[in-house]
Amino acid sequence: MKDSIRKVSIVGYGNVGSHLVNAFESNGVEVSKVLVRSLPSNRSIDFITDIQGLPSKSFVLVCVPDDQISEVIGSIPSNCSVAYTSGAKAISVLPERDDLGVFYPLQSFTKGIELDLSEVPFFIEANNSAFEGQLSELASRISNNVKLAASEERMKLHVAAVFVNNFTNHLFHVANSYLESRALDFNDLKPLISETLRKIESESPYNVQTGPARRGDKKTIDAHLKLLNGIEKELYTLLTKSIQQTYKTDDKL
Amino acid sequence: MKDSIRKVSIVGYGNVGSHLVNAFESNGVEVSKVLVRSLPSNRSIDFITDIQGLPSKSFVLVCVPDDQISEVIGSIPSNCSVAYTSGAKAISVLPERDDLGVFYPLQSFTKGIELDLSEVPFFIEANNSAFEGQLSELASRISNNVKLAASEERMKLHVAAVFVNNFTNHLFHVANSYLESRALDFNDLKPLISETLRKIESESPYNVQTGPARRGDKKTIDAHLKLLNGIEKELYTLLTKSIQQTYKTDDKL
Repeated sequence: MKDSIRKVSIVGYGNVGSHLVNAFESNGVEVSKVLVRSLPSNRSIDFITDIQGLPSKSFVLVCVPDDQISEVIGSIPSNCSVAYTSGAKAISVLPERDDLGVFYPLQSFTKGIELDLSEVPFFIEANNSAFEGQLSELASRISNNVKLAASEERMKLHVAAVFVNNFTNHLFHVANSYLESRALDFNDLKPLISETLRKIESESPYNVQTGPARRGDKKTIDAHLKLLNGIEKELYTLLTKSIQQTYKTDDKL
Repeated sequence: MKDSIRKVSIVGYGNVGSHLVNAFESNGVEVSKVLVRSLPSNRSIDFITDIQGLPSKSFVLVCVPDDQISEVIGSIPSNCSVAYTSGAKAISVLPERDDLGVFYPLQSFTKGIELDLSEVPFFIEANNSAFEGQLSELASRISNNVKLAASEERMKLHVAAVFVNNFTNHLFHVANSYLESRALDFNDLKPLISETLRKIESESPYNVQTGPARRGDKKTIDAHLKLLNGIEKELYTLLTKSIQQTYKTDDKL
């Protein structure tokens, strides 16, 4: 078994990188260098702009957008061990090296919005079991929920995350824009949104589904469709159909 | 101005009725009779099963499914004032009477799951301003957010509520069922779901949208689509299209 990783360098200081720097520093893991394109004004961190400035034989965590991962990893000195934080990038498509792994936090990060990482699931994968052990141990310094996941599993988790985060947030936007353009207040939906979330803490979403589609209430569905246009109407129609398929209610749109 | 309503009878003891009975009783409004189809075992409430047992000249709040409202209201003694709790039923389609109004809590209730009503928005409408005043005053006994809304506005709020509650919950179900059938754990998405909600407390959903559709990341979108089938794939495609239209990203599906 290799030594624990107690010092990390990080490539990228965006949504993910900035949160991980904070989490490591708060949990006794030293952040050695942070590689960025251009030096920020924050000088409590040792920023560098040249990838050759990464310490030799160190551990480097790559937190850059998916389409830059391959190139970045290809440029990191070959004696460094490397992990990256993407949910969607398979380990098999990246340039090979001795220690290559995945350190994927299943969360949506926004730079500057504080976040407790201790409950965030981290999914680990590596091209050898010694490095896998090191990455798991490192993740367990900042989170209580660390699991192994092969690339295909990680991608499936990522798809599901798109449904519950990206698509859910988009539905919030659709409702917001619909109400705003009619001089109504999206804030009046917030208690309902909180409750939607609270219900699935203790029950499966299947069991707490309500609404006209679930009831097969064709009259209300038709009345709603008359109030919608364009893609809002398409979304309403397809989501209603999907709910009806789920519960096999009799009414058809 | 008419007197405040300090005594209510309620028709229906389902998701909405049961919560309103509790809220009234906790806030100094006497619940006189509760009309149900068959007598429950709970005897701390004065249940009745015959609509003619409703007190004469009283205030009656109708909490039954939309398709029963018209018939129920038609059967209530004509000297009673009546309101109902539906978001989707226009006042104009119901049998006329002297005092007819709407008392609509914008929330998703589940019988037996406790809920703080004080932040729930109540939308009030009535066929005369004196009754409208009484209903507003009554709602303000149990909630800090009471507003007037005409039937068309209420219906629009109801449509928006379907998006943020029914459709959002269904996306949770889709993710749950997708992961479950692949031996992955929906619970690992819960911190992400909480964060999705937390972000819109302080920011508009438009501003916090992330993900492959928002970035125009066609590679990831294509990889995701390969992992989906049937209506899950249709949902992914349409929601992605809708996000791309919202931000006018260049990539096309």
